[in-house]
Amino acid sequence: MLGLLDVHTPRIWFYIHPLPIYFMSLVFAVVGDPKNYAEVNYQLDETIVRSKTSFSVFRGKEKIIIAGVSLCKNLTSFEDCEKEVKDYVIPAITSPEGGDPINHDNVIVAPNVMGKIKGNLGLFFSHVYLSALRKLLEKEPDGVVLDSTHGINYMSLLTKDALTLALSVYCAVKRKKTTFSIYNSDPYVKDHEPFVIREVNSFTITPVSGLKYVTSQILSKTPDKYKPGRICDNCSSLFSEKDVHRVAKAMDSGLFLYVTQKLKGINLRDNDEGKEARKLEVDKVLDVLERAMTVVQWSEANNEYVYMSRGNVETAEAHALFKIASQIDVEDLDQLESAVEMYCDDVTSTIVKQEISHIRQSEGGIPQDRFEKYSNVMGLQNVGQTDKRILYAHGGLPYDLTLLRKEGGKILIRYESIIKIERMLG
Amino acid sequence: MLGLLDVHTPRIWFYIHPLPIYFMSLVFAVVGDPKNYAEVNYQLDETIVRSKTSFSVFRGKEKIIIAGVSLCKNLTSFEDCEKEVKDYVIPAITSPEGGDPINHDNVIVAPNVMGKIKGNLGLFFSHVYLSALRKLLEKEPDGVVLDSTHGINYMSLLTKDALTLALSVYCAVKRKKTTFSIYNSDPYVKDHEPFVIREVNSFTITPVSGLKYVTSQILSKTPDKYKPGRICDNCSSLFSEKDVHRVAKAMDSGLFLYVTQKLKGINLRDNDEGKEARKLEVDKVLDVLERAMTVVQWSEANNEYVYMSRGNVETAEAHALFKIASQIDVEDLDQLESAVEMYCDDVTSTIVKQEISHIRQSEGGIPQDRFEKYSNVMGLQNVGQTDKRILYAHGGLPYDLTLLRKEGGKILIRYESIIKIERMLG
Repeated sequence: MLGLLDVHTPRIWFYIHPLPIYFMSLVFAVVGDPKNYAEVNYQLDETIVRSKTSFSVFRGKEKIIIAGVSLCKNLTSFEDCEKEVKDYVIPAITSPEGGDPINHDNVIVAPNVMGKIKGNLGLFFSHVYLSALRKLLEKEPDGVVLDSTHGINYMSLLTKDALTLALSVYCAVKRKKTTFSIYNSDPYVKDHEPFVIREVNSFTITPVSGLKYVTSQILSKTPDKYKPGRICDNCSSLFSEKDVHRVAKAMDSGLFLYVTQKLKGINLRDNDEGKEARKLEVDKVLDVLERAMTVVQWSEANNEYVYMSRGNVETAEAHALFKIASQIDVEDLDQLESAVEMYCDDVTSTIVKQEISHIRQSEGGIPQDRFEKYSNVMGLQNVGQTDKRILYAHGGLPYDLTLLRKEGGKILIRYESIIKIERMLG
Repeated sequence: MLGLLDVHTPRIWFYIHPLPIYFMSLVFAVVGDPKNYAEVNYQLDETIVRSKTSFSVFRGKEKIIIAGVSLCKNLTSFEDCEKEVKDYVIPAITSPEGGDPINHDNVIVAPNVMGKIKGNLGLFFSHVYLSALRKLLEKEPDGVVLDSTHGINYMSLLTKDALTLALSVYCAVKRKKTTFSIYNSDPYVKDHEPFVIREVNSFTITPVSGLKYVTSQILSKTPDKYKPGRICDNCSSLFSEKDVHRVAKAMDSGLFLYVTQKLKGINLRDNDEGKEARKLEVDKVLDVLERAMTVVQWSEANNEYVYMSRGNVETAEAHALFKIASQIDVEDLDQLESAVEMYCDDVTSTIVKQEISHIRQSEGGIPQDRFEKYSNVMGLQNVGQTDKRILYAHGGLPYDLTLLRKEGGKILIRYESIIKIERMLG
């Protein structure tokens, strides 16, 4: 019950105690229409709380409520509806006997389908993902709870998956571990109170598992699912669907040097072939993806409202990947070493660090005034290493494609050109 | 829309056509109480079907319905209720205008919580997991659809996760790719038919990603979650929670030789240390785990029914792991090579195959009459390789711990003792 340690522990302990014994949890809860929620007794461990909502038992923890925009009566615009739904939901879930108050900022109004509103549920998923990610990055919790008790239809399913994606990004970007626990209440039956809230599942997300979760989602789909025209608006000049798969593959295999050069635009050109790779302007890409998930528009006809936005599950996944990639900065061996320690599984980490140590042993032969090919530093010629197998076996630093240079106390690394690396990544 | 290719394609094509153009899908659907489902028009692409249930639009595909045991009126025993619920559900979802009939075998009655029944929802998860896995292994589909339209509360969330776990095992065990697609209908509104069924998400599971999914679930939790006393009955003499984590770590890192020796009981004893590892009797373990997920018992008091079974999410996860492990048989280099090709990511596969090729180059020095230490075959002495880093760097075949022997055209491999390997796995 890690997530519950802080019930009686004020936050200030964290600052005066050398150990991080303070454990801050954020509770996410999905609600349907809370109008008729009955006030009953809910129980968690030894705590019993009388409330209209099950999640009130998580006393002293900040709550984030996810409600559907379909609760809106006047469907003028999504922005107007956001306000209307918050004004409707907050009093309906606030119990007279108290409990922690919920403020407007802590209600996420999501583009669901219900009643007059229909269309792509990927928009619901991606909107919840981005809203949750922003909350996580702002609040920096150590644990996250999802209470699915009041969720209806597809809402709990999609919220759980969207939160898993958001938590994966959060853990990778903030380089921390977070527990994720799912709770659900015993069923409502008249005169059988209190209703016990039970943990259904709980697990820990780390920077490694967070990154792997994101890349595994993307690599389980064909690249065409990430076509710019499918996942964002007016963005096909910024990236291609192949870029999404390549960056995913590179992040998954510890090729952080490729990611850095791709995002910074270093050595894009291949002089042998005369080709040039495209620089990935990651901030611009993140911006268009975020707009696709947050700018909600619908068309109206015959008293029906249909979503028009391109926010899809894949919009959220591409955003997750590029958000993590935007934190990668590997231009020397020390940076590569800490990146693989943070983000790679044991096997990949072992192989990359083995190659790093191999390069360090040859430090004497690395020039200071220019980049020199790794094979020349080693006195090798025409090694001809340009297949994927060699790339992986050498921890992403093959003799023929890697350049080395000493600067200060560091050994700088870079690919002579990222074109050949891109080809190996597919 | 891969999952829909076969609407007009009779199965027989598969047998007369050299390419597997036939694509067999299985449709899973969750239902709440179907008593009052209205008969309306549902639409999928160009197909419109008049039916009480959204999943009828998947014409010609076999359906598996997941219904809660709480639909049972006479709660005498779970077995009696299974029959009662099937008899109740099938007529309620069968439309007069036809559609594909559902037979008793294709209704999974799951131990849900609702009405008078309460308790651990891990039992619902694990029961759905095992029932779905059995269906998958029996039917061998190429694609699986989950229609979440009629799901209520936690049911869709847990069913989606249970199906993902079952599909992961199925793909790993059958060594095949399968697509998994989630569909949901547009909302019900009077006089706005037809209601469009939309794909919310879709991805492909492979033997590699299936295995990685299972191991990542397990390694994201502390070992104590897999204590025998928590996940099955009278089973603590069969395995320990450490075994679950070790086998997960080994499968994840390509150490299939360890898994084989652990399950077959080969070289359990370490003569240096006088210690002996425990053989994992995998069939017995699978059996006790399956009983915990299928033998459903409740206690009754005060007209409330509370589940007593130990079927948990972790019961299902441990079962998933051991089910895949039970298919592993690696006693020579050829078998190791095909196992890593089937189950390992690119980096791990490259490293293991590099070591395999290294051993093959030294074939001349490997004796036929006995197992000889790899270091002796190579003419090395006191290499002292007993840490995890060396284990991974050598693709799980370090000089000091591996024995080699030629037999027929094969090179047999085995660890001198699995005790040291277990220690490295934690």
